[in-house]
Amino acid sequence: MRRYFHPETADIQLPAVLFALSDATRLGIAVALSDGKERTAGELGGGIAKSTMTHHLKILREAGVLYVRSEGTRCYNSLRLADLESRYPGLLDHLLGVATRDGYGPADARHRPSDAVTGAGRSA
Amino acid sequence: MRRYFHPETADIQLPAVLFALSDATRLGIAVALSDGKERTAGELGGGIAKSTMTHHLKILREAGVLYVRSEGTRCYNSLRLADLESRYPGLLDHLLGVATRDGYGPADARHRPSDAVTGAGRSA
Repeated sequence: MRRYFHPETADIQLPAVLFALSDATRLGIAVALSDGKERTAGELGGGIAKSTMTHHLKILREAGVLYVRSEGTRCYNSLRLADLESRYPGLLDHLLGVATRDGYGPADARHRPSDAVTGAGRSA
Repeated sequence: MRRYFHPETADIQLPAVLFALSDATRLGIAVALSDGKERTAGELGGGIAKSTMTHHLKILREAGVLYVRSEGTRCYNSLRLADLESRYPGLLDHLLGVATRDGYGPADARHRPSDAVTGAGRSA
Protein backbone atom coordinates (compact mmCIF):
# COMPACT_ATOMS: atom_id res chain seq x y z
CA MET A 1 0.00 0.00 0.00
CA ARG A 2 1.54 3.24 -1.14
CA ARG A 3 2.15 5.95 1.45
CA TYR A 4 1.64 9.56 0.44
CA PHE A 5 3.26 12.64 1.95
CA HIS A 6 0.86 14.99 3.67
CA PRO A 7 2.13 18.11 5.49
CA GLU A 8 1.25 18.49 9.15
CA THR A 9 -1.57 20.98 9.71
CA ALA A 10 0.82 23.44 11.39
CA ASP A 11 3.12 23.27 8.35
CA ILE A 12 0.40 24.20 5.84
CA GLN A 13 1.45 27.49 4.24
CA LEU A 14 -0.86 30.11 2.76
CA PRO A 15 1.12 30.67 -0.49
CA ALA A 16 1.11 26.92 -1.21
CA VAL A 17 -2.65 26.66 -0.55
CA LEU A 18 -3.31 29.64 -2.86
CA PHE A 19 -1.05 28.15 -5.52
CA ALA A 20 -2.87 24.81 -5.27
CA LEU A 21 -6.17 26.61 -5.91
CA SER A 22 -4.80 28.93 -8.62
CA ASP A 23 -5.77 26.65 -11.48
CA ALA A 24 -9.28 26.14 -12.85
CA THR A 25 -9.01 22.35 -12.83
CA ARG A 26 -7.69 22.18 -9.26
CA LEU A 27 -10.28 24.71 -8.11
CA GLY A 28 -12.93 22.48 -9.74
CA ILE A 29 -11.57 19.44 -7.90
CA ALA A 30 -11.75 21.31 -4.58
CA VAL A 31 -15.33 22.42 -5.31
CA ALA A 32 -16.25 18.81 -6.20
CA LEU A 33 -14.84 17.59 -2.88
CA SER A 34 -16.35 20.38 -0.79
CA ASP A 35 -19.20 18.09 0.29
CA GLY A 36 -16.64 16.29 2.45
CA LYS A 37 -16.92 12.96 0.62
CA GLU A 38 -14.06 10.87 -0.78
CA ARG A 39 -13.63 10.40 -4.51
CA THR A 40 -11.20 8.51 -6.73
CA ALA A 41 -9.17 10.33 -9.38
CA GLY A 42 -11.41 8.73 -11.99
CA GLU A 43 -14.54 10.07 -10.36
CA LEU A 44 -13.02 13.55 -10.23
CA GLY A 45 -11.33 13.52 -13.59
CA GLY A 46 -14.03 13.62 -16.21
CA GLY A 47 -12.15 13.81 -19.49
CA ILE A 48 -8.82 14.84 -17.96
CA ALA A 49 -5.81 12.66 -18.84
CA LYS A 50 -4.80 10.41 -15.96
CA SER A 51 -1.26 11.83 -15.74
CA THR A 52 -2.62 15.39 -15.66
CA MET A 53 -5.03 14.44 -12.90
CA THR A 54 -2.22 12.78 -10.91
CA HIS A 55 -0.20 16.00 -11.21
CA HIS A 56 -3.08 18.20 -10.01
CA LEU A 57 -3.92 15.88 -7.09
CA LYS A 58 -0.25 15.86 -6.03
CA ILE A 59 -0.11 19.67 -5.90
CA LEU A 60 -3.31 19.79 -3.84
CA ARG A 61 -2.01 17.06 -1.51
CA GLU A 62 1.45 18.56 -0.98
CA ALA A 63 -0.11 21.95 -0.20
CA GLY A 64 -2.21 20.34 2.53
CA VAL A 65 -5.53 20.89 0.75
CA LEU A 66 -6.26 17.24 -0.01
CA TYR A 67 -5.88 13.93 1.81
CA VAL A 68 -5.24 10.72 -0.10
CA ARG A 69 -6.22 7.41 1.50
CA SER A 70 -5.14 4.28 -0.28
CA GLU A 71 -7.10 1.07 0.10
CA GLY A 72 -5.86 -1.90 -1.86
CA THR A 73 -5.21 -0.66 -5.38
CA ARG A 74 -7.50 2.32 -5.04
CA CYS A 75 -6.86 5.86 -3.80
CA TYR A 76 -9.56 8.01 -2.29
CA ASN A 77 -9.21 11.80 -2.21
CA SER A 78 -10.89 14.14 0.23
CA LEU A 79 -10.45 17.75 1.32
CA ARG A 80 -8.69 18.39 4.64
CA LEU A 81 -11.64 20.52 5.71
CA ALA A 82 -11.08 20.33 9.48
CA ASP A 83 -7.30 20.90 9.19
CA LEU A 84 -7.74 23.91 6.90
CA GLU A 85 -10.53 25.27 9.09
CA SER A 86 -8.28 25.14 12.15
CA ARG A 87 -5.36 26.70 10.25
CA TYR A 88 -7.35 29.38 8.35
CA PRO A 89 -10.85 29.70 9.84
CA GLY A 90 -13.47 30.33 7.18
CA LEU A 91 -11.00 30.81 4.35
CA LEU A 92 -11.62 27.63 2.35
CA ASP A 93 -15.40 28.09 2.67
CA HIS A 94 -15.01 31.63 1.42
CA LEU A 95 -12.80 30.66 -1.53
CA LEU A 96 -14.90 27.68 -2.57
CA GLY A 97 -18.07 29.76 -2.26
CA VAL A 98 -16.65 32.30 -4.68
CA ALA A 99 -15.38 29.53 -6.97
CA THR A 100 -18.78 27.82 -7.01
CA ARG A 101 -20.52 31.12 -7.76
CA ASP A 102 -18.09 31.70 -10.63
CA GLY A 103 -18.90 28.31 -12.09
CA TYR A 104 -15.86 26.24 -11.19
CA GLY A 105 -16.63 22.59 -10.67
CA PRO A 106 -15.55 19.08 -11.52
CA ALA A 107 -16.84 18.74 -15.06
CA ASP A 108 -17.24 22.27 -16.31
CA ALA A 109 -14.02 23.91 -15.15
CA ARG A 110 -12.46 23.75 -18.59
CA HIS A 111 -15.64 24.27 -20.56
CA ARG A 112 -17.21 27.40 -19.21
CA PRO A 113 -18.22 29.64 -22.12
CA SER A 114 -16.48 32.63 -20.58
CA ASP A 115 -13.11 30.86 -20.58
CA ALA A 116 -12.59 31.26 -24.28
CA VAL A 117 -13.35 34.95 -24.08
CA THR A 118 -11.55 36.04 -20.96
CA GLY A 119 -8.76 33.53 -20.63
CA ALA A 120 -10.13 32.35 -17.30
CA GLY A 121 -8.40 29.34 -15.92
CA ARG A 122 -4.95 30.10 -17.19
CA SER A 123 -2.67 29.01 -14.41
CA ALA A 124 -0.27 31.77 -15.61
CA MET B 1 4.25 57.99 -20.41
CA ARG B 2 4.03 54.23 -20.47
CA ARG B 3 0.60 52.63 -20.51
CA TYR B 4 0.08 49.42 -18.59
CA PHE B 5 -2.50 46.71 -19.22
CA HIS B 6 -5.08 46.31 -16.49
CA PRO B 7 -7.96 43.83 -16.85
CA GLU B 8 -11.49 45.18 -16.55
CA THR B 9 -13.05 44.38 -13.17
CA ALA B 10 -15.52 41.97 -14.80
CA ASP B 11 -12.62 40.10 -16.41
CA ILE B 12 -10.74 39.50 -13.15
CA GLN B 13 -10.56 35.73 -12.64
CA LEU B 14 -10.25 33.90 -9.33
CA PRO B 15 -7.46 31.49 -10.39
CA ALA B 16 -5.33 34.41 -11.59
CA VAL B 17 -5.90 36.34 -8.34
CA LEU B 18 -4.97 33.28 -6.27
CA PHE B 19 -1.88 32.69 -8.42
CA ALA B 20 -0.85 36.32 -7.99
CA LEU B 21 -1.04 35.87 -4.21
CA SER B 22 0.56 32.39 -4.15
CA ASP B 23 4.07 33.71 -3.60
CA ALA B 24 5.46 35.04 -0.31
CA THR B 25 6.95 38.16 -1.92
CA ARG B 26 3.77 39.06 -3.81
CA LEU B 27 1.67 38.35 -0.72
CA GLY B 28 3.98 40.69 1.18
CA ILE B 29 3.53 43.40 -1.47
CA ALA B 30 -0.26 43.07 -1.22
CA VAL B 31 -0.09 43.28 2.59
CA ALA B 32 2.12 46.38 2.31
CA LEU B 33 -0.41 48.04 -0.01
CA SER B 34 -3.48 47.03 2.00
CA ASP B 35 -3.59 50.49 3.61
CA GLY B 36 -4.80 51.77 0.23
CA LYS B 37 -1.81 54.03 -0.37
CA GLU B 38 0.35 54.16 -3.51
CA ARG B 39 3.97 53.06 -3.41
CA THR B 40 6.80 52.88 -5.94
CA ALA B 41 8.55 49.59 -6.68
CA GLY B 42 11.54 50.92 -4.74
CA GLU B 43 9.44 51.61 -1.68
CA LEU B 44 7.98 48.10 -1.86
CA GLY B 45 11.11 46.24 -2.81
CA GLY B 46 13.42 46.32 0.16
CA GLY B 47 16.38 44.25 -0.93
CA ILE B 48 14.65 42.59 -3.88
CA ALA B 49 16.39 42.90 -7.27
CA LYS B 50 14.66 45.44 -9.49
CA SER B 51 13.96 42.93 -12.28
CA THR B 52 12.44 40.48 -9.77
CA MET B 53 10.24 43.23 -8.39
CA THR B 54 9.12 44.21 -11.90
CA HIS B 55 8.18 40.58 -12.55
CA HIS B 56 6.14 40.30 -9.32
CA LEU B 57 4.36 43.63 -9.90
CA LYS B 58 3.47 42.57 -13.45
CA ILE B 59 1.84 39.33 -12.25
CA LEU B 60 -0.16 41.24 -9.62
CA ARG B 61 -1.20 43.87 -12.20
CA GLU B 62 -2.21 41.41 -14.94
CA ALA B 63 -4.30 39.44 -12.43
CA GLY B 64 -6.21 42.61 -11.56
CA VAL B 65 -4.86 42.83 -8.01
CA LEU B 66 -2.73 45.93 -8.50
CA TYR B 67 -3.08 49.22 -10.37
CA VAL B 68 -0.03 51.02 -11.76
CA ARG B 69 -0.19 54.76 -12.34
CA SER B 70 2.71 56.33 -14.16
CA GLU B 71 3.58 59.95 -13.57
CA GLY B 72 6.58 61.26 -15.45
CA THR B 73 9.32 58.69 -14.98
CA ARG B 74 7.78 57.22 -11.84
CA CYS B 75 5.26 54.43 -11.38
CA TYR B 76 2.96 54.23 -8.39
CA ASN B 77 1.39 50.92 -7.37
CA SER B 78 -1.81 50.50 -5.43
CA LEU B 79 -4.23 47.66 -4.71
CA ARG B 80 -7.50 47.61 -6.67
CA LEU B 81 -9.40 47.37 -3.39
CA ALA B 82 -12.77 48.64 -4.65
CA ASP B 83 -12.65 46.55 -7.84
CA LEU B 84 -11.75 43.38 -5.97
CA GLU B 85 -14.35 44.12 -3.30
CA SER B 86 -17.06 44.42 -5.94
CA ARG B 87 -15.88 41.26 -7.73
CA TYR B 88 -15.25 39.11 -4.62
CA PRO B 89 -16.80 40.77 -1.56
CA GLY B 90 -14.66 40.32 1.53
CA LEU B 91 -12.20 37.93 -0.06
CA LEU B 92 -9.11 40.13 -0.27
CA ASP B 93 -9.66 41.36 3.29
CA HIS B 94 -9.92 37.76 4.43
CA LEU B 95 -6.78 36.66 2.55
CA LEU B 96 -4.68 39.64 3.61
CA GLY B 97 -5.87 39.26 7.19
CA VAL B 98 -4.61 35.68 7.23
CA ALA B 99 -1.39 36.70 5.48
CA THR B 100 -0.75 39.48 7.99
CA ARG B 101 -1.40 37.13 10.90
CA ASP B 102 1.05 34.63 9.38
CA GLY B 103 3.72 37.31 9.16
CA TYR B 104 3.77 38.17 5.46
CA GLY B 105 4.71 41.75 4.79
CA PRO B 106 6.91 44.00 2.69
CA ALA B 107 10.23 43.56 4.40
CA ASP B 108 9.96 40.28 6.26
CA ALA B 109 8.35 38.03 3.67
CA ARG B 110 11.62 36.37 2.78
CA HIS B 111 13.13 36.45 6.24
CA ARG B 112 10.60 34.82 8.50
CA PRO B 113 12.39 32.29 10.73
CA SER B 114 9.88 29.57 9.82
CA ASP B 115 10.73 29.80 6.12
CA ALA B 116 13.96 27.92 6.46
CA VAL B 117 12.29 25.11 8.34
CA THR B 118 9.03 24.65 6.48
CA GLY B 119 9.84 25.87 3.02
CA ALA B 120 7.16 28.55 3.26
CA GLY B 121 7.17 30.96 0.43
CA ARG B 122 8.13 28.54 -2.29
CA SER B 123 5.96 29.49 -5.21
CA ALA B 124 6.02 25.77 -6.15
